[in-house]
Amino acid sequence: METLSHHNILVMLLSLGVLLAAARILGELAQLIKQPAVVGELLAGILLGPTILGTLSPELSLFLFPPTGPNAIALDAIATLAIILFLMVAGIEVDLSSIWRQGPKGLKIGIMSILIPFSCGLAAALILPDVLGRPETSPLLVFSLFIATALSISALPVIAKTLMDMDLYRSDLGMVVISAAILNDLIGWIIFAIILALMGNPGVTADSVVFTIGMTLAFTVLILTFGRHLIHKSLPFVQAYTRWPGGELSFAVVLAILGAALSELIGIHAIFGAFLVGAALGDSSHLKERTRFTIDHFVSFIFAPIFFASIGLKVNFMEHFDFKMVALVFILACFCKIAGGVIGARWALMSRKEAWATGFAMNSRGAMEIILGVMALEAGIISHSLFVALVVMALGTSMISGPMIRIILRYQQHLSVADMLTSKYFLHRLQASNPKEAICEMVELPCRTTGLDKNLIEAAVWERELSLSTGIGKGLALPHARIEGLKHAIIVVGISKDGIDFDAPDDKLAHVIFLILTPLSDADAQLAIASEISGIFRNESMLEKALKIKNFTDFMALLRTAPRGWPF
Amino acid sequence: METLSHHNILVMLLSLGVLLAAARILGELAQLIKQPAVVGELLAGILLGPTILGTLSPELSLFLFPPTGPNAIALDAIATLAIILFLMVAGIEVDLSSIWRQGPKGLKIGIMSILIPFSCGLAAALILPDVLGRPETSPLLVFSLFIATALSISALPVIAKTLMDMDLYRSDLGMVVISAAILNDLIGWIIFAIILALMGNPGVTADSVVFTIGMTLAFTVLILTFGRHLIHKSLPFVQAYTRWPGGELSFAVVLAILGAALSELIGIHAIFGAFLVGAALGDSSHLKERTRFTIDHFVSFIFAPIFFASIGLKVNFMEHFDFKMVALVFILACFCKIAGGVIGARWALMSRKEAWATGFAMNSRGAMEIILGVMALEAGIISHSLFVALVVMALGTSMISGPMIRIILRYQQHLSVADMLTSKYFLHRLQASNPKEAICEMVELPCRTTGLDKNLIEAAVWERELSLSTGIGKGLALPHARIEGLKHAIIVVGISKDGIDFDAPDDKLAHVIFLILTPLSDADAQLAIASEISGIFRNESMLEKALKIKNFTDFMALLRTAPRGWPF
Repeated sequence: METLSHHNILVMLLSLGVLLAAARILGELAQLIKQPAVVGELLAGILLGPTILGTLSPELSLFLFPPTGPNAIALDAIATLAIILFLMVAGIEVDLSSIWRQGPKGLKIGIMSILIPFSCGLAAALILPDVLGRPETSPLLVFSLFIATALSISALPVIAKTLMDMDLYRSDLGMVVISAAILNDLIGWIIFAIILALMGNPGVTADSVVFTIGMTLAFTVLILTFGRHLIHKSLPFVQAYTRWPGGELSFAVVLAILGAALSELIGIHAIFGAFLVGAALGDSSHLKERTRFTIDHFVSFIFAPIFFASIGLKVNFMEHFDFKMVALVFILACFCKIAGGVIGARWALMSRKEAWATGFAMNSRGAMEIILGVMALEAGIISHSLFVALVVMALGTSMISGPMIRIILRYQQHLSVADMLTSKYFLHRLQASNPKEAICEMVELPCRTTGLDKNLIEAAVWERELSLSTGIGKGLALPHARIEGLKHAIIVVGISKDGIDFDAPDDKLAHVIFLILTPLSDADAQLAIASEISGIFRNESMLEKALKIKNFTDFMALLRTAPRGWPF
Repeated sequence: METLSHHNILVMLLSLGVLLAAARILGELAQLIKQPAVVGELLAGILLGPTILGTLSPELSLFLFPPTGPNAIALDAIATLAIILFLMVAGIEVDLSSIWRQGPKGLKIGIMSILIPFSCGLAAALILPDVLGRPETSPLLVFSLFIATALSISALPVIAKTLMDMDLYRSDLGMVVISAAILNDLIGWIIFAIILALMGNPGVTADSVVFTIGMTLAFTVLILTFGRHLIHKSLPFVQAYTRWPGGELSFAVVLAILGAALSELIGIHAIFGAFLVGAALGDSSHLKERTRFTIDHFVSFIFAPIFFASIGLKVNFMEHFDFKMVALVFILACFCKIAGGVIGARWALMSRKEAWATGFAMNSRGAMEIILGVMALEAGIISHSLFVALVVMALGTSMISGPMIRIILRYQQHLSVADMLTSKYFLHRLQASNPKEAICEMVELPCRTTGLDKNLIEAAVWERELSLSTGIGKGLALPHARIEGLKHAIIVVGISKDGIDFDAPDDKLAHVIFLILTPLSDADAQLAIASEISGIFRNESMLEKALKIKNFTDFMALLRTAPRGWPF
């Protein structure tokens, strides 16, 4: 068998390691500034690809990412496997039944937010094919259908993540938006599958178009009905008669790979098959959370970053950056998608505010658009410049989506407790021996840096403490007060080795003390923070671990990795 | 960039899907008959490779697994990534500190079980290089060193699994064996790394040998001291300042890949670097169980099966099966490794019985031997026939290890509750309305099929029930008795929709009733079974779920996937 040489193996490992490390680091940084991880992951590829590294040091770039030969094939093989597993995870996230549960509302929004962008896109591509840089190899009809689809598709994972971050995922608004997005994706991918099949078939005739549409629809229906039923019936059997959790894990991955192969075999792109199998799997109530998490984590944090970073290696984003085209695509995409969402939402009798939030939510294109772009680029449907414009549009729409919804709904971001902590407000060795001293010692820290009036705050916290003591048991105390003029919540953490008597119901001394100061204007913040903290410390071993930490970083690590009622 | 064509993608997905499916199914079957999964996984490759499928249908074999071209490269790239991740997991399992904890005992066994096989192997290869089929390209010294190493290495994962299956892993004997095996592996891999480096360097001189040995030792020491320290210090930082659990997961995988690249760069094989990084990672008390599990499961159930099955594609096992060589290698391997283990154990003043058990435990070569063989085959050190002999030896030694230890220690296999259940002894709709009727109804099932005396058993169970009722609360009852003449434990399950009053301490009616009959001779079986059952049903939701099941398969799925105090 032909194998990789030692040099090939070395290059493959170096390129994979560097790519994954860069993608994850930039992905984390993107999330720090409240942006989707995919923004950072793509940027990593642009930095390591022809755009930046290839310009600064062509030799290093050629060494790490040779454009031809075994290493190019090896990286493409791993990226292909990665995207198939990623689409499987995207499919698992789809909740088919919620489309029906949301009824006509989701349907109306889903339809309008496809119909309007699709018509606009079709019209624009038919009228201005040259401005959009249609390659000569790409038939006008196929090209126009692609532009129409590219404008219509949504990014379910990004939308879901944005809504989750704002605690809107399980709200009525959230479920309507999600069900509309699922409909969007499903129809978008079916159209795209048809386009790809048409593109692979040079002698396109009316018959072949009908045949492809028929095959795609038949495949979709088959997997989502018969396949789904079969999977649902098989899962208990797999769980009962194989080693847990390995059996179910392999079962799911094998199905996704074979589903991808099957769809490739009948002429639809592999990723569509993986997506459908994922949807069928995720729909089964028998699929265990544990399996979902293992697949989701390994794919989201290993495979997906490799795939998205590898995109940056394909194209020189600087060279192919055509400002006019980028602007045109971006404006057209935003305008017609937001319009579609708003009109659909108003048709579904939602309030004006909610309608605009819906429009901006549906507007984010994220990873899905980029995947679509890669496939179209490789199939020769679009030019490099249009590909760059699509990527910029995908990132831009994803980045504005969250902030715009926050503005429209006047949403006050609730940070997690770990996000609110800082080493400045951390007292590893609290000196105090009683509550009054502890409060005094802890209040001093924020007052020193922010210029708040120490006496005023101390009095407020102490007054609250006297009215009802804040020792909640299990070694925790949460003294707190609402402070006028405070802009955002402040948490000070103090750790007392000897313990302080905060008059807890279980009579235990408090060792970990969270002083919580919240703005007077934000009535809910205090309760949200307190309930998150007591949730984290529900596990008895947490207190013990907290007393063993050596510094602020250890404390943060403890909070972030605390078990939070995982379902297994 | 050079990419895979549609045809390539189709073939890649089909081959991966088929390979993984076959490997997992045969791996599960192997485990059913108490054999290591790797036996089945290898067999899957032999079935799909040139040995069987290639002979039966050369066209299909060529289509699925083309020996040259992009698909051969793609599969090799994925298999290479797989083996690197597998060695990382093997490294994580190594507990470096236990070598020190076990002190001289483990050291003595470790030394003897390397020294004796190594000398025997060296002597045999130097005396009989032609019987062992030395290829002309392989220098005699390198070849002999390889044979010596191949006979000396153990298979830590297989040994660990065998001991765990027998509840011996945490015993004194278990820890001594494990620490000896770790020492074995560490030294074995270092020697092998040196061999590979010598092989890659055609003009071998005394200087270059010294240089290679120096580099390998320096690399090992560097990673296990400085690298280990750095990883331990970095983990809390990663946990504190990245999204959990993605940050730690990526950190571990990136380190393993870069460690592999580094070792490849300095001329040692990549897998050695991954193994060392794994050992350094696993040694840190900061590495979370959750991360270990996610990596372990994805690698053990997806990557490892692909790798081991892909081995079968490389060689025609029938054509290269040389009986004399297979027999020689097998006998030599067993004889000198068992001798080494026994002598070392006796030197460490262990009893004769324990010494023999140690010898057979150390004798299992499993996956590690096969990996060593693949590397040597690809480096041209050994012939195809010797490779086949090594694989047979690796599988054979792993397969006899468990049964032999059981015989030597007269170990009574404790099956898990799920392993003891059968659909024949399952009453989905118990008719009884009181304990006496329930016992009568349930006792009938085993008596009907085994010919046991119904009245006798019923009386024994009822007598036990009268002396102290067996309703243990939470809707469970565990009526039981020890029965003379019974060969192995029998469990009958009955589910009562209405509930039966087994006089539980929480006054709840029993809905799930396990009738447990154990042999009179086995004093511990009853307690072990009862405590496993109550552990499974500790979670309140289990009873609710048990009442919803539709058949025996559902019930088995419920038991197997029940949360059992996972640490997260």
